Amino acid sequence: MSIIYFDSAATAIPLPEAVESAKNAIDIYGNPSSVHSAGLTAKKVIDDARKKVANSLFCKPEEIIFTGGGSESNNQAIIGLAKLRARRSKRIITTDSEHPSVSNPINALEGEGYEIIRISTKDGVLDIETMEKELSLGAGFVSIMLVNNETGAKHDIASVRKAIDRSGSGALLHCDAVQGFLKTADRKEIAKNCDCASISAHKIGGIKGVGALFIKNGLKMPAFIKGGGQENGFRSGTENIIGISAFGTACETFNSDKLARISEIYSHLVSILPDYVDNIKLNIPKNHIDTILSVSILGVRSEVMLNALNAEGICVSAGSACSARKGPSGALTAFGLSKEEIESTVRISIGAHNTKEEAEYLAQKIGESAKRLRR
Amino acid sequence: MSIIYFDSAATAIPLPEAVESAKNAIDIYGNPSSVHSAGLTAKKVIDDARKKVANSLFCKPEEIIFTGGGSESNNQAIIGLAKLRARRSKRIITTDSEHPSVSNPINALEGEGYEIIRISTKDGVLDIETMEKELSLGAGFVSIMLVNNETGAKHDIASVRKAIDRSGSGALLHCDAVQGFLKTADRKEIAKNCDCASISAHKIGGIKGVGALFIKNGLKMPAFIKGGGQENGFRSGTENIIGISAFGTACETFNSDKLARISEIYSHLVSILPDYVDNIKLNIPKNHIDTILSVSILGVRSEVMLNALNAEGICVSAGSACSARKGPSGALTAFGLSKEEIESTVRISIGAHNTKEEAEYLAQKIGESAKRLRR
Repeated sequence: MSIIYFDSAATAIPLPEAVESAKNAIDIYGNPSSVHSAGLTAKKVIDDARKKVANSLFCKPEEIIFTGGGSESNNQAIIGLAKLRARRSKRIITTDSEHPSVSNPINALEGEGYEIIRISTKDGVLDIETMEKELSLGAGFVSIMLVNNETGAKHDIASVRKAIDRSGSGALLHCDAVQGFLKTADRKEIAKNCDCASISAHKIGGIKGVGALFIKNGLKMPAFIKGGGQENGFRSGTENIIGISAFGTACETFNSDKLARISEIYSHLVSILPDYVDNIKLNIPKNHIDTILSVSILGVRSEVMLNALNAEGICVSAGSACSARKGPSGALTAFGLSKEEIESTVRISIGAHNTKEEAEYLAQKIGESAKRLRR
Repeated sequence: MSIIYFDSAATAIPLPEAVESAKNAIDIYGNPSSVHSAGLTAKKVIDDARKKVANSLFCKPEEIIFTGGGSESNNQAIIGLAKLRARRSKRIITTDSEHPSVSNPINALEGEGYEIIRISTKDGVLDIETMEKELSLGAGFVSIMLVNNETGAKHDIASVRKAIDRSGSGALLHCDAVQGFLKTADRKEIAKNCDCASISAHKIGGIKGVGALFIKNGLKMPAFIKGGGQENGFRSGTENIIGISAFGTACETFNSDKLARISEIYSHLVSILPDYVDNIKLNIPKNHIDTILSVSILGVRSEVMLNALNAEGICVSAGSACSARKGPSGALTAFGLSKEEIESTVRISIGAHNTKEEAEYLAQKIGESAKRLRR
């Protein structure tokens, strides 16, 4: 059975161009730190990819360091900024719906004596007034995601920047842009507004195991992985050439045409789902991106629906698939869903490979399954 | 010009079997944390690779966690063990010739108030008597490399284990086994003697950007990268399926036949180098592995020799290529070489792909270059 894949927010099917790039890079065996010809060939692959990633983020290549993925980027940013700012302020402002790779290191800092302020994002909307009030009391840094991985809610990073600037707190701004990177209308907003930002290759059609951290020029963030001093001293370890090469290519390839196609399928799904599925609640934030559609199919537990759809060859997820741990979703609770709604929530996430026919099939199968499972 | 590659300690040319495995894994696009069919397919690849890595290390699959490389493994081990042992003892015993991905996090801990004891490894031999004395004064953990990346010196991990046991200190033992993994006579010594050990894929013919950490059953080491809880909670982040798949295959493929071929070439080089090259000093530790041969070509600066050899299509390195930073080699200083010797030291590292003819060519070209450059 061929698979109908509506789980691109968990991991996107690699773009053919990125796969090609990865395959070509397999034969480049030198260590980029070596000064001989094999090393220089490898270094060139990384330099080229760095330029491509920087271009897509509208920053300078030297502001990009490659990491082992979005989670590592987030850990480095949180721990690094906390250390950098410890003498000035041990107060961190974040939200109540961050990804575990942000919230867990922040929770660990709380255990070490940092004060953590978690601003509400009810209905997917950041309570910017409360954030401003909290900023006026001082903060070392702010960490907020660009797009929520479970609801698709998009936060206005420019307004957070303005609030920081108005507050005079001098707080730095980190953005977990893993889900939003290349998927928002304004591609310039990240580098323009943030001091550092985390991105990941496999969410945009690159391959798994590589990410990057944007570190604004001149920001002396401490290294997270220490050692040989690769990545300008910010991240030691021999570089993942295959993944980095494919990352650069994916950044070039994931363009606005693909995004427009995704938006078409999103709109189509939003319009047909209520026709196909009785008693379905679409959890659509006011500001959102069109790659993630959260729905609550009341009366059907999400894992049961997942299994039913899987049997029909359809892949979706319950909340986030990024987390290997179980438990009620913090992001959906923050969104304001009830326990019953959360337990019946399914995340449909759309990729550039999806078609309208697949969307029809998905809606039809959700409807049929809901009818059968509710009996 | 085809390249003659004698820099396998920097990074080995991927084994054809590992390349095949990586290429096959590119098409496996699911997220291993997803519970649908695409996710389960991806999870199976990782489970299979974990078994292969565990088999080659003679440990249980659940004792292996995959990481982004040897440097990350070392950082996790050092920071994790320090935190785990902080209440019991803030004393760490290590050596004076560790890789920067061990020594740099340890130096950072020293800045945070830990007491660091660095035992001499002069001539590549661990001063075990001094280590025993220091152990009797107490220690939270010991970190020692299995094989030095610049000299090939092999340390006797079993005797370190015995010294720890005799001391009654209860110290844990971490081993940076990145250079030694699969290259020593006794493959069982790591899991048998260590509480945790770092290994890397690309040093044994896997691909770059993936490593593993052996964590002995039941050891509650804190996570280094926190988040979704992958790798049994020890290392969050979506798994590098391609790299992990190739890692498993490389572990199966890098066998004793390959090691025997490497030893033959090593012995051949040791016997012919003094004939071809005037005034060459072979820095051979008493106990060593046969993949790394350090030589000092007195009167010729190593970077000049590197360039001369590179022009002949030969890749070797000066000391370690793992480090992107410059500076005098700490490992060669610890070995006991003079400043002049260090400045003229070249590391020849042998891989399974090398031939006797290449060894002859290398010796000849070093000899010719030395003659010309000394004029």
